Amino acid sequence: MTGNKIDQATPTEMMAGMAKKARLASQILAQAPTAQKAEALVLTADAIRRHSADILAANAQDVATAENNQSSSAMVDRLRLTEARLENMASALEVIAHLEDPVGQIIDKRTRPNGLELTRIRVPIGVIGIIYESRPNVTIDAAALTLMSGNAAILRGGSEAIHSNKALYQTMREGLAKAGLPEEAIQLVPTTDRALVGAMLTASGLIDLVIPRGGKSLVARVQQDARVPVLAHLDGINHSYVHKEADPEKVEKVVVNAKMRRTGICGATESLLIDRGYPVEKVKSLLQALHNAGCEIRGTAEIQKIDPEARTVSEEDWGTEYLDAVLSVRFVDDMDDALSHIARYSSGHTDAILTENREVAEKFLASVDSAIVMWNASTQFADGGEFGLGAEIGIATGRIHARGPVALEGLTSYKWQVRGTGQIRPVA
Amino acid sequence: MTGNKIDQATPTEMMAGMAKKARLASQILAQAPTAQKAEALVLTADAIRRHSADILAANAQDVATAENNQSSSAMVDRLRLTEARLENMASALEVIAHLEDPVGQIIDKRTRPNGLELTRIRVPIGVIGIIYESRPNVTIDAAALTLMSGNAAILRGGSEAIHSNKALYQTMREGLAKAGLPEEAIQLVPTTDRALVGAMLTASGLIDLVIPRGGKSLVARVQQDARVPVLAHLDGINHSYVHKEADPEKVEKVVVNAKMRRTGICGATESLLIDRGYPVEKVKSLLQALHNAGCEIRGTAEIQKIDPEARTVSEEDWGTEYLDAVLSVRFVDDMDDALSHIARYSSGHTDAILTENREVAEKFLASVDSAIVMWNASTQFADGGEFGLGAEIGIATGRIHARGPVALEGLTSYKWQVRGTGQIRPVA
Repeated sequence: MTGNKIDQATPTEMMAGMAKKARLASQILAQAPTAQKAEALVLTADAIRRHSADILAANAQDVATAENNQSSSAMVDRLRLTEARLENMASALEVIAHLEDPVGQIIDKRTRPNGLELTRIRVPIGVIGIIYESRPNVTIDAAALTLMSGNAAILRGGSEAIHSNKALYQTMREGLAKAGLPEEAIQLVPTTDRALVGAMLTASGLIDLVIPRGGKSLVARVQQDARVPVLAHLDGINHSYVHKEADPEKVEKVVVNAKMRRTGICGATESLLIDRGYPVEKVKSLLQALHNAGCEIRGTAEIQKIDPEARTVSEEDWGTEYLDAVLSVRFVDDMDDALSHIARYSSGHTDAILTENREVAEKFLASVDSAIVMWNASTQFADGGEFGLGAEIGIATGRIHARGPVALEGLTSYKWQVRGTGQIRPVA
Repeated sequence: MTGNKIDQATPTEMMAGMAKKARLASQILAQAPTAQKAEALVLTADAIRRHSADILAANAQDVATAENNQSSSAMVDRLRLTEARLENMASALEVIAHLEDPVGQIIDKRTRPNGLELTRIRVPIGVIGIIYESRPNVTIDAAALTLMSGNAAILRGGSEAIHSNKALYQTMREGLAKAGLPEEAIQLVPTTDRALVGAMLTASGLIDLVIPRGGKSLVARVQQDARVPVLAHLDGINHSYVHKEADPEKVEKVVVNAKMRRTGICGATESLLIDRGYPVEKVKSLLQALHNAGCEIRGTAEIQKIDPEARTVSEEDWGTEYLDAVLSVRFVDDMDDALSHIARYSSGHTDAILTENREVAEKFLASVDSAIVMWNASTQFADGGEFGLGAEIGIATGRIHARGPVALEGLTSYKWQVRGTGQIRPVA
């Protein structure tokens, strides 16, 4: 029986089988018209709405298990689906369906002196593995971005969300089938066997890219074990630097937002650097505004002098992504001092300067070596949607392939088309 | 003594030390004006010409050692430098110095409805490790491309070329110093200790990208052991497909060139697929032309019927990169049959169709999933210089970051600059 055969396959064989089906599907997807891919997403949105009761029932099983296992309330919250959350997923699908399709876009075109016409054209990457944790909406978001960019996906969600993921996955299969696309374009690893993650990470030549979406330990494990390329999203140890010529009104508004709007996202500011030339009474009112917003300040001795509520900052704090209502604060002598601090401690995600001096700002924007550098704006804008990409599969902090918010274009590669009329290459 | 300290450092410590110096140098290079980088290259070219006697003397040592070790004549030839080869290196430097500098180029720019101005701008990758084999010219070519794209490089050449590489490296240091750039922008691993390769491959966070330049076993080892991103160049198992509507005159000229112009380069055609509808007398004359050019034909039984000189092709042949005057040949029923063969056996480097039918050609160019796809042109055009890139550091066969010939642009990343006027992100 086929069922038994699958059960008896080793994790490596099972992953290879999925990857081969994905490869075949990816060849069809690579040629699929934009409208057909979009239709699959719209039909999936429709299926989510129609099957919402089933999806919520499956989710209730996962939530009950998590509660029985005394999971943290934050984790149960990430896991829990509601009608509103399902509607958000459905509308996200409709947004992605209307994004510009990068596949087939011409990146450059040139004619060589010998008459050869060269065209560099965007193509999908191929087969993408996505490894994620407890949030079931990733099943839909990640699959939608992968599909719309013409790629096949193999999804491996968290074991705690397995019933929710399976129910959501069925809607995606329904959307694909109704749109006339291969159902194997998106596959969900059907078991929670962790060996399948290892098999995915070592499927060289079968899987073209793995994207881990989750916490630090997941990303670290993926980077350690992977023999396939990884598009990783590491910490956001982000800085806001208040230059001496900053406008105090903007500073207070922007810094409080950068830290406190949502403390748990990767674009939140974690360290505040204040120029010694910035007026001390403005420093006081800034720190007070942060306290008022519920933020704990960890400061140097100098900071503690002007803010008696501030706790003592440690060396470890500068390298910590709090993801919480905590901010490490110090003075810097000048911009060079700020640049050194950032070069040493930034995780290369998002760093911002606040100043009214354009020349200083431009130097900061040119010098800071992070995926996103900002002038007079909240670091919380670090987001694919806010950047106008329509969505994001993550914010890449590496320097290879894609950097910063990654949406459809970041999920493509390119190829070179050469059109000739019988040209041969002369011997040099 | 410092010398002793260095000798006592472990390979990991030694590589970390080099990588840290490289990082500092890369920060200066990232901001260096185009003219200064170009000047360093032109001054290096000058130094190569002035020090040619010293370089040739160093090279003579390596050649003598290789001959004493009874290295193959091909290997000794790759190793040997001559005045003419030095002059080629010097002029290559001058060509690279005049290429368009990608650093600072704006990839896209948009203003968001909230007034935020987003600019995506090319920046160097950072610190690049290059591992290569016996050809000493790579010391200059690779260093020049890396430098011109604003990156720092750590070079690890073949142990058999160590004296040549050191002598060439001195010219690069001289060029850098005279141009006022940090000499640590390019570093040469000073010993032949193989453990340093391992240390380079695992220097996560210290080295941003490793590029292996060499044979299959080198690239395979690098891909297996690397914990840092790798830009790999794998085999060129390239196909030329003669469609039934091909022009026999073009076919003969192009196929002979694609196979025989230089058999040892990765762009050489290794398998020939002939449409059954192509006239049999033209097949005969094509195979005869290949024989006349010195090519061994390995064919199916059907091919052997019309070419008695042809040897028998084996299943293994279809997956072999001969890099020699050998060609595997079979008939295919039609384009779909050709596409299946290519999908199965191509290494994704370069595949070509010969036909006068534009519609068929366009289908081939769209369907074949290789870095380079060609119509009516010799696969031997697969080369950065021929593509107008001025040079190449290799032809990438992966699908991440860069694909096909890689020159300056492929050695860059980008960052997002966000210019605001105090915008804060609303709570969703």
